[in-house]
Amino acid sequence: MAENSREPRIVVIGGGTGLSVLLKGLKKYSSHLTAVVTVTDDGGSSGRLRAELGVLPPGDIRNCLVALAETETLMDKVFQHRFFQEGSLKGHNLGNLLLVAMTEIAGDFISAINEVSKILAVRGKVIPATLEHVALGARMQDGLTIYGETLIRNYNGQIAELFLIPEKCMPVPETLNAIMEADAVVIGPGSLYSSIIPNLLVEGVVDAIKKTPALTFYVSNIMTEQGETDAYSCADHLEAILKHVGVQIFDYVVINNGLLDETRLKRYREEKAVPVQMSLKAIQEMGIEIIQDDLLLKSNLAWHDSEKLARLIINKLGIIRAVKV
Amino acid sequence: MAENSREPRIVVIGGGTGLSVLLKGLKKYSSHLTAVVTVTDDGGSSGRLRAELGVLPPGDIRNCLVALAETETLMDKVFQHRFFQEGSLKGHNLGNLLLVAMTEIAGDFISAINEVSKILAVRGKVIPATLEHVALGARMQDGLTIYGETLIRNYNGQIAELFLIPEKCMPVPETLNAIMEADAVVIGPGSLYSSIIPNLLVEGVVDAIKKTPALTFYVSNIMTEQGETDAYSCADHLEAILKHVGVQIFDYVVINNGLLDETRLKRYREEKAVPVQMSLKAIQEMGIEIIQDDLLLKSNLAWHDSEKLARLIINKLGIIRAVKV
Repeated sequence: MAENSREPRIVVIGGGTGLSVLLKGLKKYSSHLTAVVTVTDDGGSSGRLRAELGVLPPGDIRNCLVALAETETLMDKVFQHRFFQEGSLKGHNLGNLLLVAMTEIAGDFISAINEVSKILAVRGKVIPATLEHVALGARMQDGLTIYGETLIRNYNGQIAELFLIPEKCMPVPETLNAIMEADAVVIGPGSLYSSIIPNLLVEGVVDAIKKTPALTFYVSNIMTEQGETDAYSCADHLEAILKHVGVQIFDYVVINNGLLDETRLKRYREEKAVPVQMSLKAIQEMGIEIIQDDLLLKSNLAWHDSEKLARLIINKLGIIRAVKV
Repeated sequence: MAENSREPRIVVIGGGTGLSVLLKGLKKYSSHLTAVVTVTDDGGSSGRLRAELGVLPPGDIRNCLVALAETETLMDKVFQHRFFQEGSLKGHNLGNLLLVAMTEIAGDFISAINEVSKILAVRGKVIPATLEHVALGARMQDGLTIYGETLIRNYNGQIAELFLIPEKCMPVPETLNAIMEADAVVIGPGSLYSSIIPNLLVEGVVDAIKKTPALTFYVSNIMTEQGETDAYSCADHLEAILKHVGVQIFDYVVINNGLLDETRLKRYREEKAVPVQMSLKAIQEMGIEIIQDDLLLKSNLAWHDSEKLARLIINKLGIIRAVKV
């Protein structure tokens, strides 16, 4: 940053692929990154480890560590390696098993993440949203209450309200400090009900976001997700967050305005996903400034281009800070 | 080595704990170490991985890699970590899983071992005795033939003859080169029928040992082993090897003459193991020079002291070489 002699301090909050994409872009601009990562996953390798060993689900943490690994080495590949042959190991990632083993050796999950961060030469910090063995619950529009992230998604209904079990989960104190000292807090992209809102329901997180002098960004998803956000516009996403946290917390919303080609649209239609409608007017009425650009990755997926997304956020940060100075 | 400007080249052949103990001692004196390691294990974590994934059993290789790791780091601990909680991972070592994953990533077992060697900063080379998926067979004294290392040991009879399946297994070419260029070839300590003889049955290994100018050592086990060498004297071990390889291949036999205390003797008696009788006269009649010393580790196990054992071999090598010079 030419305007400022130090690298910006950025906290990103979320989970899943979206968070990894964002981190891959941001690590080129700053080493003062803190990723606050959801730990409510109960499916796949993470879910099995959680059920069998009583550990926190390592999958999202693993992906963030790899995203922040300084160089792409063989160790990254090993860490992401998934056993695909039949047998008891099938579907497990070696990195998940390494995190579990390291937790037993180091004594706790945070130390394990720190040790693995050293092995992978990670740029920045990865912190679980909470150390409590938290699960998701959802009250559906039809009145039913469902427990567990995978079951909620598979129920395929409209979620009225999401809650954590236990309801009162404490964050890692470092999370709150990082938010308070940040130049930017970026939330999303990511699954609204399984990656974004659960992190905001952890005690103290929203309070810190309200109090921090940091600029706050919401990065809108490019596509809706079946069972979570069917037919949701960008404003619907923001309203769902507002409803859960009780207050408007965003300065900016970052929206992709690039158009998907028919091949990608068709592919996503098969998964019952469509582009998130921009709903600009509704967002303006919420008092959130809109930043829109063509942020599409050139690929056959509807993913953000991590470089474009990161640059957009960094630029916004630079301009504001230049004005402040 | 003061007598010689270069470190001695040493090949050790075996498997199990014995080989690891020897390597831990030798690595202080030389970085030109080659460990040729048995791959006939079919029990435990290695056996399960072998049965489920069709890989070579990684356990003995893993132990040697850790024994040769340059410093004792957290990575060693991670590598040796065994999952102990109930579930599909129970009993697996993370290092075994890492070797399996690395084999899939790197494409073959040798490359995987080399990559892991880099991660652990291994001093020397670890080579599987063969890359073929070899099993052990045994014709017992009572006429029965038994297949599989674990079953042979558990049958608890007298082994008449051991053989490999397939009978003709090829070594890794590097093994033969290393033997030919060695200053010393050290065989044992280790389980006679599951760690020592199988390696000598691989094509070309005995021929190379016969032809090499290296000094050849057999390190006698301290204790007999139930189901393998019940009541065997040291001479019985040597005769069993002679019977399988057809020719006397040792210049020296290294024998512990330290006496075990009653506590250790009692403990081993419970496992039906007794001290291996020195049988010095019978060995002398075989034309093998005997080196004896108190080589016992100060512990509650009947293990070799790796430092004493290594120094004894290195000293012998030094004196001989000094004479040669």
